Amino acid sequence: MQHLPTGTPLRTQAFSPDLSPLVLAIPENPLRALFPYAARPGMLNLASGHPSPDAYDTEGLTEASRRAAADAAAWSYGPSAGDPQLIAALEALTPTRPRGHRLIVTSGAQQAVDLALRSLARPGSTVLLPEPIYPAILSICAAAGLRVEAYRLKADDPELADLSRALGRGEVAALYAQPTFSNPGGETWGLAVRKRVLELCAAHRVPVIEDDPYRALCHAEAPPAALVELSAQVQGSIVIWAGSLSKTLAPGLRLGWAAAPPTVTGPMTELRQAGDLQPNSLAQRVALRYLELDRLDRHLTRVRGLYAARHDRLAAVLGAAGFSFEPAAGGMFLFPALPEDTAIEGLFERVLKQNVLYAPGPSFALNRDARFGNRLRLCFAGLDAEALATAAARLVAALNE
Amino acid sequence: MQHLPTGTPLRTQAFSPDLSPLVLAIPENPLRALFPYAARPGMLNLASGHPSPDAYDTEGLTEASRRAAADAAAWSYGPSAGDPQLIAALEALTPTRPRGHRLIVTSGAQQAVDLALRSLARPGSTVLLPEPIYPAILSICAAAGLRVEAYRLKADDPELADLSRALGRGEVAALYAQPTFSNPGGETWGLAVRKRVLELCAAHRVPVIEDDPYRALCHAEAPPAALVELSAQVQGSIVIWAGSLSKTLAPGLRLGWAAAPPTVTGPMTELRQAGDLQPNSLAQRVALRYLELDRLDRHLTRVRGLYAARHDRLAAVLGAAGFSFEPAAGGMFLFPALPEDTAIEGLFERVLKQNVLYAPGPSFALNRDARFGNRLRLCFAGLDAEALATAAARLVAALNE
Repeated sequence: MQHLPTGTPLRTQAFSPDLSPLVLAIPENPLRALFPYAARPGMLNLASGHPSPDAYDTEGLTEASRRAAADAAAWSYGPSAGDPQLIAALEALTPTRPRGHRLIVTSGAQQAVDLALRSLARPGSTVLLPEPIYPAILSICAAAGLRVEAYRLKADDPELADLSRALGRGEVAALYAQPTFSNPGGETWGLAVRKRVLELCAAHRVPVIEDDPYRALCHAEAPPAALVELSAQVQGSIVIWAGSLSKTLAPGLRLGWAAAPPTVTGPMTELRQAGDLQPNSLAQRVALRYLELDRLDRHLTRVRGLYAARHDRLAAVLGAAGFSFEPAAGGMFLFPALPEDTAIEGLFERVLKQNVLYAPGPSFALNRDARFGNRLRLCFAGLDAEALATAAARLVAALNE
Repeated sequence: MQHLPTGTPLRTQAFSPDLSPLVLAIPENPLRALFPYAARPGMLNLASGHPSPDAYDTEGLTEASRRAAADAAAWSYGPSAGDPQLIAALEALTPTRPRGHRLIVTSGAQQAVDLALRSLARPGSTVLLPEPIYPAILSICAAAGLRVEAYRLKADDPELADLSRALGRGEVAALYAQPTFSNPGGETWGLAVRKRVLELCAAHRVPVIEDDPYRALCHAEAPPAALVELSAQVQGSIVIWAGSLSKTLAPGLRLGWAAAPPTVTGPMTELRQAGDLQPNSLAQRVALRYLELDRLDRHLTRVRGLYAARHDRLAAVLGAAGFSFEPAAGGMFLFPALPEDTAIEGLFERVLKQNVLYAPGPSFALNRDARFGNRLRLCFAGLDAEALATAAARLVAALNE
């Protein structure tokens, strides 16, 4: 025990505290690691899944803020599960779902997935993830001490035998899916695959987490019914559905929500309460007042139009340059493979030198290995059409410089 | 593997999914469990630590909201550690601290403590908590799989031999403290105790989490220097300091912040990113614009005056009725012992029947046992002076009905 001589203030020579192995296991989020590049002046950002500010309904949000600020509920504590009035309003934005499901408000779909996984999966158990994967899900799993295993749905395996084997290996606590306009792949599962996945998960008593933030951004065609809707027809299936206002209204609101049986929303709410007590009251009140303005449908029609034009413009440039990819019917992303003769080594830096930023394919590999090394994730939503065309042209020009 | 006969939609007969033992271990938060009572019409709520809406600077908050809404940053994604402009503004509200400490924005002090504990303590390790304890801390510990052990600082043990023994038992990952206007006790540690705690923790290489949301609410006298400030004089000590705008500005903003060495704020930020990506952009922008209005000092002077009058009014009624307690020099709470002849059995219900709500003492026992059975936590901040006097008179009248 060390005593200090009185009157001798010392500069702290701090020890480095031990850190939990769980926090040390969190991999760097390769998308958030791009933020400093994105902030460079003049950078054309194709990397980030951010709605462009010209796709915000600024007038509506401003009016909603004005109304919200006049209400003491915006400044006060509220229920951990969310504002009951907002929950009622979110019903209209949620797919049809089995009787008894409840809604809880979360800080974005990210928190909904975090709470669902930490409620369903004990440390050491396994979560099945699609590959390519949205990498923020890997952070959740690492922080919770969960093992991850990849699954891929292949066109030549309609019975999903691979998935069935993975589900049968035991200790699988949950299957995570983005079946609609996926990030990064831009893919959408067909109806038969959706039903088959639910049947398999029900048979193995594995709950499904359906991360569905892009559903309303269907610029080409409406997606098939959500897993949560179909689950009412598949006996024994459980789906925890996660939605978000980030891509439709504004990401800065940090509002998402989850629909699930009360046996799951209850524990999720307790976990949320332990972590940060409750959703943001101000943001909830602004969202509620916005939804009451009855502008969302018109706003989404406008956004879908913007994104359709941007998608088609980017797809045209990529197609002409020899990229190979499936067009996306909605969402915000393409995940094209580079033309075959591209010098991949140094490409990120060459493109960056042109003030264009993309998200490299290996960011979306489960083990951050070389998989998807010839792919890029490109967000077509974040730039206006002219900037997008400039960015795409520079990208193509940098391919084989 | 069960197949469905086509065309026969079944009602889901869902299995109950297994839940993680961590989420099952979360104790009910006895304060949030009082919310339904608090919502009853006409209820006079002495139980909840909520600022009364008449202590909000509604005019300032409204103006700040108006300015924030005009700014695309309010609606957009931002850095996981918080808005750099807000962080700069929060510097002025943070105690002096050792060189190199960084600030990160959190969703209330609750999230700051959650992130600090989960970064510093691995599952199975021990956290030392003061008793009586603010019960939301127990939820954090349970969800993270941490053991908890109580410490009490006694006036007749100036060397803190008990605490020294507890720190020496090994596997202690952190000590949590509310040294200033504590919740529920309303107590403030003197300077000698503060230094002694820091010396002991430094000697045992145990980091200290200083939860300090009430510091600015010093209605009678200014508190001693914060542990984080004193830590610069105690070689080898590490303090993670947590502050909040909930009690000074508005709890609905859900904004707090942490000050700590970067070896700790770094992991805390990664954990936060895994859980919900980043702080609320809208709330951060509103807080920034509010602080720029330069109204906070005047607002706090007004609030301190309100709370001083309320504290004194409640203390006078309790004193006259034979309660025993130390007056509080700040914060929001008294934790008085009932007069000796009070029939404790059924008291909560008798008081409730008078439309008055208090928080029973055992809510603040580490093991929810009968400890503090003769105490009540009473918040003097949440009601205006007249309602407070009515509530206190009804409480006294119900004591021995």
